[in-house]
Amino acid sequence: MYDDAHTLTGPEIDQLLAAAQWAPSAGNSQPWILFVCERGSPNHARLVARLSRGNSGWVPRASVVFVTAAHVRTGTEADAPAYSDYALYDVGQAAAHLTLQARTMGLHTHQFAGFDHEALAVDLALPGTHLLLTGIAVGRQGDPTDVDERTAARDHKVRERRAVAEIARAGTWTEPWAVGHQ
Amino acid sequence: MYDDAHTLTGPEIDQLLAAAQWAPSAGNSQPWILFVCERGSPNHARLVARLSRGNSGWVPRASVVFVTAAHVRTGTEADAPAYSDYALYDVGQAAAHLTLQARTMGLHTHQFAGFDHEALAVDLALPGTHLLLTGIAVGRQGDPTDVDERTAARDHKVRERRAVAEIARAGTWTEPWAVGHQ
Repeated sequence: MYDDAHTLTGPEIDQLLAAAQWAPSAGNSQPWILFVCERGSPNHARLVARLSRGNSGWVPRASVVFVTAAHVRTGTEADAPAYSDYALYDVGQAAAHLTLQARTMGLHTHQFAGFDHEALAVDLALPGTHLLLTGIAVGRQGDPTDVDERTAARDHKVRERRAVAEIARAGTWTEPWAVGHQ
Repeated sequence: MYDDAHTLTGPEIDQLLAAAQWAPSAGNSQPWILFVCERGSPNHARLVARLSRGNSGWVPRASVVFVTAAHVRTGTEADAPAYSDYALYDVGQAAAHLTLQARTMGLHTHQFAGFDHEALAVDLALPGTHLLLTGIAVGRQGDPTDVDERTAARDHKVRERRAVAEIARAGTWTEPWAVGHQ
C-alpha cells in the first residue's frame, strides 16, 4: 500500500518521463503519450473519479499516476489506417522503461487497467487518433500494517510466473527451450 | 555491427529469458512467447531466410535473436475473442525487460520487425492464437571499421526523441508537462 504522504518532486517526475521518452520504437515512431496525475492535481481527480471499485482504495494513495495512451490511428475516422503495427508494443516498452527507472530510484510501481477508459478519454480530451491504455501508479511503500485485509492479502501474495520452458522455444512451437544448458 | 564470432552461453540466454519471464502483465496473463534463434541453429536459419533485404546484412551476425509472439486470441477462428486487450503492450514490456537485462550484461540489442511475418509463423508452426511481432537481436558490438558504409551510417546516427513536453501532459490533451518544475 502506498504512503499517501509521500510526493515526488518535479525533477523526479522528469526523470521517469525521460526513461519513457528514450524507449525504442518501430521506425522511431514514439507512439506514447503520458498524462501525469499527481496526487491532489486536477488530472488526479479526473482519474480517481473513473477508477473501478477494486482500484479506488489503493490507486489514489500513490504519489503520481501516469496514464498511458498509444497513437493507434493516423486519422480520427474509425477506419483510419493504423499509425504503427507496433504502437501498443512500443507503449509497453516505454512503460517498462519508466517502471524500471522508478525501481532504481527506490520507488514502487503498480500498473492497472481497471478504470472507465471511454469516460476518462473524454475527460482528458484525448483525440480519436489515440487509445487510452493503462495507469502506472508510482510512490513509496507505506506502513504495511496500515491497510485493510484485502489489500494486505494482495500486497503479500507470492509472485508467480510460467516456467521458462513454457514461454520459450528452442525450435518450432513444440520444442521448448531447455533451461540450464551450457 | 555485431561481432559474428561472439556467442552467448546457455546460462546467459537463460538470464535474458528470466528477465522477460518476470515482466508484469494484465491479470498476470503473461501473453509472451520467445523463439530463441542462436546463430547457426535451425531456428536461426528459418529467421534469416525470411529477413527483409535491409535486415539481412546485420541481423545474421547477432549472437542470438529472440523472435517474440503475443497470445492474441483465445481460439484459432479469425473472430475468436481477444485473449487480453493488453497482450501487445505486455509483450512490449517483456521485450524491454529482456533488452535492459542485456544492457546490464554488457550486451547490445537492436529490435526489428522487417521480416516476412506470415511465412516465418508457418515455419515456426505458430498456432492461430498467436501473432508474431518482433525480433530482438542480441550480441556484442564488433569492430566498428569492419562494416559497409550504410551500416556505419546507421550505427553512428545520433539518437533523437521528441521533447518531453510533446509526449507528456500536466492536464488534458492541450496542457503540456513543463520540464524543470520543482
